[in-house]
Amino acid sequence: MIKNDLLLRVATQEHVERPPVWLMRQAGRILPEYRALREKVNGFKNLVENPELVCEVTMQPVRALHVDAAIMFSDILVIPEAMGLPYQMVESKGPWFEKTIDTPTDIQQLRLANPEADLKFVTDGIKLIKTELNNTIPLIGFAGAPWTIFSYMIEGKGSKTFSKARTFLYRHPEASHTLLQMITDSTIVYLKAQIAAGVNLVQLFDSWAGILSPKQYDTFSMPYIKQICDAITTVPKTVFAKGAFFARAALSDLNCNVIGLDWNMDIAESKAIINGKKALQGNFDPCGLFADKTTLVQETISMLNAFGTNHIANLGHGVYPDTPLDNVKLFVDTVQAHRY
Amino acid sequence: MIKNDLLLRVATQEHVERPPVWLMRQAGRILPEYRALREKVNGFKNLVENPELVCEVTMQPVRALHVDAAIMFSDILVIPEAMGLPYQMVESKGPWFEKTIDTPTDIQQLRLANPEADLKFVTDGIKLIKTELNNTIPLIGFAGAPWTIFSYMIEGKGSKTFSKARTFLYRHPEASHTLLQMITDSTIVYLKAQIAAGVNLVQLFDSWAGILSPKQYDTFSMPYIKQICDAITTVPKTVFAKGAFFARAALSDLNCNVIGLDWNMDIAESKAIINGKKALQGNFDPCGLFADKTTLVQETISMLNAFGTNHIANLGHGVYPDTPLDNVKLFVDTVQAHRY
Repeated sequence: MIKNDLLLRVATQEHVERPPVWLMRQAGRILPEYRALREKVNGFKNLVENPELVCEVTMQPVRALHVDAAIMFSDILVIPEAMGLPYQMVESKGPWFEKTIDTPTDIQQLRLANPEADLKFVTDGIKLIKTELNNTIPLIGFAGAPWTIFSYMIEGKGSKTFSKARTFLYRHPEASHTLLQMITDSTIVYLKAQIAAGVNLVQLFDSWAGILSPKQYDTFSMPYIKQICDAITTVPKTVFAKGAFFARAALSDLNCNVIGLDWNMDIAESKAIINGKKALQGNFDPCGLFADKTTLVQETISMLNAFGTNHIANLGHGVYPDTPLDNVKLFVDTVQAHRY
Repeated sequence: MIKNDLLLRVATQEHVERPPVWLMRQAGRILPEYRALREKVNGFKNLVENPELVCEVTMQPVRALHVDAAIMFSDILVIPEAMGLPYQMVESKGPWFEKTIDTPTDIQQLRLANPEADLKFVTDGIKLIKTELNNTIPLIGFAGAPWTIFSYMIEGKGSKTFSKARTFLYRHPEASHTLLQMITDSTIVYLKAQIAAGVNLVQLFDSWAGILSPKQYDTFSMPYIKQICDAITTVPKTVFAKGAFFARAALSDLNCNVIGLDWNMDIAESKAIINGKKALQGNFDPCGLFADKTTLVQETISMLNAFGTNHIANLGHGVYPDTPLDNVKLFVDTVQAHRY
């Protein structure tokens, strides 16, 4: 039994007295203790691949911010690496893959991820975190949605337009489906391994949902998210498809529990579309955390009132690294003082 | 009288036999003759600021693609420069401003743009283009929407999140309105100068509309677009607010003639929202131009059928520089062979 199980109760549409709150990217650069650790440890991947450090970084925001959920510290790109495409995290630039999928035949070099062989640093980290958390709050696991992982495997790095990945969909639709299915199968075993190790809820991040046309999203993203939601049956599931405003109705028909909203999505309109079928998570503008304190509190309360119940308070995207920590705390405190 | 005035007739909701077609960024890197000229001329700004070259680059796609409209070759960033913030175009990186607006007091250094003193290279270019076009097709003028120009003045360069600009809105709402009003006033006189020089339609590009919350868009972008639409009374007006799916209903109430759609916006849904009040422009996925020819033709016809009449065929964003020119031609030819 988890003492503060607000997150899980909202996810399963139980009544709660106030919204739970956590922040995307809460484990990271907003915290001075993270920045200090990052200076000592040479390279981002040496954090991600070390279970003790994964545990430490996951716990930092739990101690500093008293959030209502922990999220395991990791990266969605461990899946392409486990499938045969290693990545590097280049300081202040982002991810970079030395090999990419340029043609359909390149897909033959890939393998399905084997969590026991390739991702033990994640599951070992989860076990350490669970011990450390000692059933105080839930632990969230996660993975990238197949379309987002596919984008990185083709582009090899971040991009404004992800035009290489989208062009691949037009030029090679069958090969695209083959690769998306391999990513989906890998993601399902990966999430099951996270759950076996102890996570209490899983979130799928479709970070690049918003660059597809509605038709392409229906064809190349949604069916694979659906497969994952259908395959995971033992914990609640959150789907956060950033920018996919056009997919909100379809998302609400998935076998999932929570839908994440970004700050572009109007709360009232989203509630009308999703119509109480799922709990909603989000969607404070990360830039709102740079406002003066009065504005910040007003905007937070205005968001809470707009959502009403069945709401997990969060940002509409990851917290920006240079956000004033006091303001992050004020956001968390304001949510936690709220009562329905 | 312009011989092929399809664009203007659609903009004013007259009946036409087929949709007109042009492409955002048709004057540019997709054309080998542009790339050749760019190699001879040292620096992008030496093109933009030379009326003869502005005319030549504007005419290149007219000759090569037989599009139904020319769009003057220029850059939206001539306005911040005319207001006191000079920019450079850094090869393969994009725009860069040496001075930016960091605090409200920085706004005091700015002036209103004076088209006669600061932007004569644009109006002189327009006059040359009009002579060259010789009333064959309409000429489109343009400007950035105030919010998008504001973003560049604060950020000083492109950005994934434009978080500095959005933070400025939260921290300094009054100063934000002051600056947006100055940009609006500058843009109105600039567009009027373009019209006096001969352009037949003007388009406002709100390229960074999609990073604001609906509420911020209502507060900091829409009122200024409205002012511009109300001030320009002698030619039709197009508003293209990329990513502002949430603003489609509000855009349809503006005093403008055409609304541009990006490829994320479902055509049927957009038509339902805008409800025949404006002509629509767009929204072929620029990546669709990399498809094989059969797919390209199918997708183009599917788009034309989805829009029906009152449609200006275009892409949902600027054409990517490495698009195969044959495919661009096929897109244009397919639209021009279409009949209602």
